This record gives sequence, structure tokens and C-alpha cells, in this order.
Amino acid sequence: MGRKPVDFPEWLSERVEHIESVLDQLLPPAPTAPRSLHEAMRYAVLGGGKRVRAALVYAAGEASLQSGSEALAQRIALDHAAAAVELIHAYSLVHDDLPCMDDDSLRRGRPTVHVQFNEATAMLAGDALQPLAFELLGLMPIAPALTVQATQLLARSAGSLGMVGGQAIDCDSVGQALTGEQLQQMHSMKTGALLEASVLLGGIVAGAGSATRAGLESYAAAIGLAFQVVDDILDVTSDTATLGKTAGKDAAGNKPTYVSIMGLDGSRDLLQALREQAHAALLPLGPSAAHLASIADYIVGRDR
Amino acid sequence: MGRKPVDFPEWLSERVEHIESVLDQLLPPAPTAPRSLHEAMRYAVLGGGKRVRAALVYAAGEASLQSGSEALAQRIALDHAAAAVELIHAYSLVHDDLPCMDDDSLRRGRPTVHVQFNEATAMLAGDALQPLAFELLGLMPIAPALTVQATQLLARSAGSLGMVGGQAIDCDSVGQALTGEQLQQMHSMKTGALLEASVLLGGIVAGAGSATRAGLESYAAAIGLAFQVVDDILDVTSDTATLGKTAGKDAAGNKPTYVSIMGLDGSRDLLQALREQAHAALLPLGPSAAHLASIADYIVGRDR
Repeated sequence: MGRKPVDFPEWLSERVEHIESVLDQLLPPAPTAPRSLHEAMRYAVLGGGKRVRAALVYAAGEASLQSGSEALAQRIALDHAAAAVELIHAYSLVHDDLPCMDDDSLRRGRPTVHVQFNEATAMLAGDALQPLAFELLGLMPIAPALTVQATQLLARSAGSLGMVGGQAIDCDSVGQALTGEQLQQMHSMKTGALLEASVLLGGIVAGAGSATRAGLESYAAAIGLAFQVVDDILDVTSDTATLGKTAGKDAAGNKPTYVSIMGLDGSRDLLQALREQAHAALLPLGPSAAHLASIADYIVGRDR
Repeated sequence: MGRKPVDFPEWLSERVEHIESVLDQLLPPAPTAPRSLHEAMRYAVLGGGKRVRAALVYAAGEASLQSGSEALAQRIALDHAAAAVELIHAYSLVHDDLPCMDDDSLRRGRPTVHVQFNEATAMLAGDALQPLAFELLGLMPIAPALTVQATQLLARSAGSLGMVGGQAIDCDSVGQALTGEQLQQMHSMKTGALLEASVLLGGIVAGAGSATRAGLESYAAAIGLAFQVVDDILDVTSDTATLGKTAGKDAAGNKPTYVSIMGLDGSRDLLQALREQAHAALLPLGPSAAHLASIADYIVGRDR
């Protein structure tokens, strides 16, 4: 740990500010032609957000570095990996909000991309954010073999057996009864896959060995699931102003959720068990995993 | 060249049959969950098509091989690269056909994906085909540094400064007058970028040196443009049954085309000039570039 230890909230807000700046620099400037497309891409990505995925990349990088301090090349590589997962996440939100999907008009307290621009521009902005993520991975100044591993991981987590596959199951399940097992499968693909990829990307980029990677994988599985359980709880316990997106939407849409299947108390019990699994997985990694541990607590405790 | 030379039509139909089989094997099987998503992905990709992009990858591979014969690893790598460009092309057609874009119901003589399935499934199928393309590149059994180059190239050609950017300009230009220069810029991004990437991917995968790459780049620029000029000519000279897609659509939609700007004769003159540029660029590559030369003639002479 070459860095002076800092409080987690301070570390997190510094990382959030940092990734905003990185994304701002790596996205094509707004005046670049085609202008409306690039404005929409920037609107979609730079509109705030919790930046949990970027924070996971950075924290997993810290936990995995062998030498104890980050060389400039590793800092750049972690920036690119963190930006890549945020771009994939941002594109998925743009497409999910479209009228043919969730038809949502509010996101992070602002009009969604297709409302602010138009449907065609929103779809194309999402389509263009995805290859930009892979381009950024390809520009990481690390061993090409590690870049190939990172590309594979991101591609799988974003594809039909990962994020998009989970989204498809979600669409198909509206109005249908899912078992707890089916629900878990859907969420582990839809939300969990990219969160887990974020953790593992940080490890790959920082040169994590196999023992560290195993710990990261167990941690990632737990927090990936926890994230969705919290989302489902917040959908029924919070309000639109706090969430910055439409509350009660899943319940109104008759979508199966953890709360609808195991109740509010059952969901909260599951959440605590997942938090403990995450902490246990980090024990072998030692004190350099402190920020990963704090992110697990942050995910479990978040209110929006 | 380790292969016995064969007639171009025979070579092309063998390659088309081969890439269909490769795509069939590399796409997730239809029964894989989520089933509707994978059925839509297979419907979008395996529905025929000219496979010009795959043929360019294979022909550029032939033209670039140093040793004169393809090792098994190179054959597999060329298959993955050819499949990747066909997946990107197929996803772009699925999204272009959606109601918020061109709103087309016919493609390759069959219902478009959103008509056959539904809009959400069509959008998600396109979203999932894109990372599958990058995953396939990452699985090429070649030097990781070459894989990274290939990934970079495909990502750039598919992104906001390539294919998707061209599509955005096309959307924004409906009903507007474009200059010949603006039209060329739009098409070089929308259609040319991926065709050019196909040629260069074949070269990269087969280990082309810088002189060969320069020849491939000049060839690729010429055929990329020629492809769109032919499309514009066919839009006004052919009929829907021959094209397998709606004829006269661009003219009816008041979209600027080469024909609307420089007339039918002017467009045909440009086409012949581009064909000559393509042949000239291949001269330094010698007889191994014969199939690339034939593809240039094929693109200029096609009637659908």
C-alpha cells in the first residue's frame, strides 16, 4: 500500500471524482462529428451515478498489487478498466430506459437519453459506448496477454450469458412467477456479471495471482447478488426523489423481486449473509483489501 | 500458396458455406437459456447474406501469409475474425431495421428480427452480438499482441467514429442536402469502416508486414466506398424481389445518395475508378491477392 490510508468515504468520493474526470477525458469531445451522437454519449455517461463499478476496479487493483505501489502504467490501466465497465453500465441503462424496454423517462434525477435527445440517437449512443469500452481495454499499457484476458472477461460479462441475457430473462418474466432460484439466476446475470467483472478486472490488470483471484471471485459473487437485493428492497421502501429514478416500478410492473418472493425480512437476512460472505472472502488478502471490504458495507447500506 | 487455385465463384461459394458453418458452431445453441434471445441472435446472423466481409477476411489472410500455407492456428484465427465482422454487421442490421430507425420489415427476403420476435428481443439480440464478436477475437490462437491490434481495429471501426457514427449522420441527414464530400464521409464511416476493418483484420491475423498492410489499406478504402456506390445505384435500378429488401427506400425517404448527387452515369464512372484503384493497390502483393482482386470485381458487379 504505497498510499497513505484514508477514511473510506474520503477515498470513495476521491475515486468518484477521479473516474468522472477520466471518463470526461476519454469520451470523444462533444464538438466531434457526429455531434448529436457524441453529446448523447457524454450525457449518458457523465450524468452522475454511484460509480460502484469503477470503485470496485480500483479497490480490487489495490488489493492485488504485488509490489505495494502502483506504477504509472498500472494507474492508467486501472483508469481504462474502470472507464470500460462504467461505459458498459451506462450503455445498458440507456437501452433499458427505451420505450421498447422499461420505457422510463427519469434516470439519476434527469430526463433519460431518449427523452433528452430522441430514440434513434439513444440507441446509437448505447451502440457506440460498447465498442469504446473494448477500445479502452485494448489501450491499457500492460502485457498484451493480460489485455486479452480482460477483454474476454468484459465481453462474456456483457453478453448473452451475462448482462444482456439477464435483461432478456427479466423482460420475458414480466407477469410470470419466478422461483427464488430463477430469480437469483436472472440477477446474477443482469447485475452480478458486470459487478463481478469489475472486481476481477482490477485483479487482472494489477497482476493478481491465482489465490488472490479466487478470493476476489468469492467476494464478487457475494456483492453482485447483494447489490440486487438492495435494489429490490429500495424499490418498495424508498421514494422517487431519493432514488433519482421511478420507485415502486418493479412492484407496479408485476416484476418478480427478492421482496416479492422472500419478503422484506427474508431479503434483509439474505443481505447480511452476503455481507459476511464478502468479508470472509477477503480475509486471506490482508489489509490491502480494506476498501473492498468497505465497498461491501457501502453496497449493503446504501439508500439510493 | 498451399492451396490449389480454384475459380473465384467456386472459392467464394465454398467460403460462404464455410462461414455459415463456423457461425452456426460459434453462436450459442438455440436451446441455451435465455432461449428467445439466442434464437433471435441465430435468426439475425444465420439468415443468409452475401458474407462479403467474411470473404474479405479470408482473402486478405491468403494475400498476407508469409509461409505460403495456413497453419491450423491461423485457420482458426481467420474463422474467428471472419465471424466477428459478420456478427458486428448482423447486429447493425437488426438495430437499423427497428421502428425507431429505418422501421423496415423485410431483410434478406424474410421478416426482420423485431417483426419475427419483438422489439425488445431484437434490441437485446443486437446488444449481445457485439460483445460476442470481441469475445471471438479474444479467443484467436495467435500472439496476444496481434489479438490486441485486432480488437482495437474492430472496436474503432464499429464505434462512434466508424459504423455507428455514420449511421448517426445518416439519421440526422434525412431531408437535408448533403454535399458530395459530406456524403462520402458518412458512407466511409457507415459502411466503409467495417469493410476496411475486414480486410485489415485478415492481414493482421496472418501476420502481414507493413508494406502488405499499406496495400491492403489502399485496396480497402476503394472497395469500402465502391460498396456504397453500388448500393445507391441498386436502390434506384433494382426491385424489392431481387434485392431481398425494400427497393427505392432511400429515394422515397429523401435520403441523399450518390445517385441523387452525381446522377446515375456519374456514379457508374466513380465506381469504375474505384475498381481500378483497388486493383492497382494489390499489384505489389502478387498472385496471392487474386481473390481480393476478384472480390473488388464482384462488389462492383453485384446486382443485389
